[in-house]
Amino acid sequence: MMSRFPRRLLLTGLACGVAAAPALAADDLPSWNAGPARQSIIEYVAEVTRADGPRFVPPAERIAVFDNDGTLWSEQPLYFQLAFALDRVKVLAPQHPEWNTQEPFASLLKGDVKAALAGGEHAIQEIVMATHAGMTTEAFAATVRAWITTARHPKTGRLYSEMVYQPMLELLAYLRANGFKTFIVSGGGVDFMRVFTEEVYGIPPEQVIGSSGKVNFEMRDGNPVLVKQPELAFFDDKAGKPVGIHQYIGRRPIAAFGNSDGDLQMLQWTCDTQQGRFCLYVHHTDAAREWAYDRESSIGRLDKGLDEAAAKGWTVVDMKADWKSIYPEAISPGN
Amino acid sequence: MMSRFPRRLLLTGLACGVAAAPALAADDLPSWNAGPARQSIIEYVAEVTRADGPRFVPPAERIAVFDNDGTLWSEQPLYFQLAFALDRVKVLAPQHPEWNTQEPFASLLKGDVKAALAGGEHAIQEIVMATHAGMTTEAFAATVRAWITTARHPKTGRLYSEMVYQPMLELLAYLRANGFKTFIVSGGGVDFMRVFTEEVYGIPPEQVIGSSGKVNFEMRDGNPVLVKQPELAFFDDKAGKPVGIHQYIGRRPIAAFGNSDGDLQMLQWTCDTQQGRFCLYVHHTDAAREWAYDRESSIGRLDKGLDEAAAKGWTVVDMKADWKSIYPEAISPGN
Repeated sequence: MMSRFPRRLLLTGLACGVAAAPALAADDLPSWNAGPARQSIIEYVAEVTRADGPRFVPPAERIAVFDNDGTLWSEQPLYFQLAFALDRVKVLAPQHPEWNTQEPFASLLKGDVKAALAGGEHAIQEIVMATHAGMTTEAFAATVRAWITTARHPKTGRLYSEMVYQPMLELLAYLRANGFKTFIVSGGGVDFMRVFTEEVYGIPPEQVIGSSGKVNFEMRDGNPVLVKQPELAFFDDKAGKPVGIHQYIGRRPIAAFGNSDGDLQMLQWTCDTQQGRFCLYVHHTDAAREWAYDRESSIGRLDKGLDEAAAKGWTVVDMKADWKSIYPEAISPGN
Repeated sequence: MMSRFPRRLLLTGLACGVAAAPALAADDLPSWNAGPARQSIIEYVAEVTRADGPRFVPPAERIAVFDNDGTLWSEQPLYFQLAFALDRVKVLAPQHPEWNTQEPFASLLKGDVKAALAGGEHAIQEIVMATHAGMTTEAFAATVRAWITTARHPKTGRLYSEMVYQPMLELLAYLRANGFKTFIVSGGGVDFMRVFTEEVYGIPPEQVIGSSGKVNFEMRDGNPVLVKQPELAFFDDKAGKPVGIHQYIGRRPIAAFGNSDGDLQMLQWTCDTQQGRFCLYVHHTDAAREWAYDRESSIGRLDKGLDEAAAKGWTVVDMKADWKSIYPEAISPGN
């Protein structure tokens, strides 16, 4: 499986933090420009790892949670999982002649994504259920694997997994080297993300929390299978994020990283009144190298969160100013 | 928090397996008698950890799942969490005058546990909801912590946390020393278990899967809290166990340990037709040192599972014959 991903993206997938690792090497975060954002990260990590310091945190409690879309990889012009779903609709269309006259599928199949998504949340749910249910968990994972290793982003021509943020890959590795256990807490589908998070981010499946559909256990020809159902089991967004953290992790993180109002409750839950916590928003300010959007965006809206970050002194990354590079430099050859 | 538990029970709570640890030391499982059960464990571990062997499994995939009640600690004459709930009913009764005439509470408060539980599942659910909801997750954890560190079992006089199985503690440590990541997958409440699993079993909260109630995120005086609701979110028993494994861990275990028909689907899911998997049932055969029960028991019934274990060649531990001791030897002084 490893070999299907470009080697240069791979991180060592160590689930174990090495508490004794030397902190603060000058090149720990090489893609971060010197500035207040980088500085706040380095100071925080130094503080909680200094064994004789007043804010020392034992390694077992160094839980760091990361949103995915817009925080670890791009999310424009559409959430990448939605791009996967749209591609699946095209593949599955021959088996569904009724889609030719049924929205949102009819518009999609005519190539009019905008009209298809005009139905909002409901349309998206229809598309996701039609493409994410009715098969075993293993069949679904195989489908995602085939897509993520071949499909390319319309604007950049990169594999979607090559649109992860290089500075955030470095941050994940830096935290793990300092004894943190890194988790993803995303509104995205958990069965979708777990296919690639270990190889792309070094985060194993059991440290990925996301939205999920119901699955049923069945015996087929004497073999057990889990079958994905067209019914939501858990929606891991907004107030669902602290709930998901409680249900899956069972303890409060000490550091949280997001980019939108959908992450606000997760950051509130992490950085309540207690000292010694760290919260960070990635602010998309770079129209040239990535995208620039915040208060008015329908995808990844950052409005209330920006105000609360200012009021509470959370770190806000100015993507344009703080990041030397956006994506990993070397990418796989295009078609 | 550590100091509230008897020191001699404590295991090193390392979440990280040490893959390079020497395997097969003669005293790895000192409380296990020589015999086919112990032998099958040692042979299996040797097989999957031998780097040049045909059944080598990389450490990241060495996921082992354990039921809790009846597998890691005793469950008679009542599930210990139910004993906690009954104690809570007594504590809360002054705030609930209506309980004096309302079943199952009325019988309970008269000391007639049997009559109270005559209502079966429904009565148990009433009792659990009345004692496990309506407070913040942190208040609930504090209540459990106070109980688990003081309440004693009516028959043995031990703290409930001192009724864990010494041979299973050794097995957990042995697997971790061989690079396994150990998880609990229990029908018991996840918020109940997570209070003590790290200290008692060396299993951190994020590796505990259990039944759960809904929780709501709320802001109270500007501070975020999670409030436990009287509504089931997930029931982690029978077919729910493989579902829980999928939702929480996201990959299939290679080894599974249980003691009842409630664990059967988990064992089936783990030990399907593939080679290189390990499944084990603890069979309660020791009426003198613990309890003896199987096919006819209302708690921890092991009937279909016993047949399937025989048919499929799973390991069955005969508690009386296979275990030198049942509980840890040294216990905390009684009152």
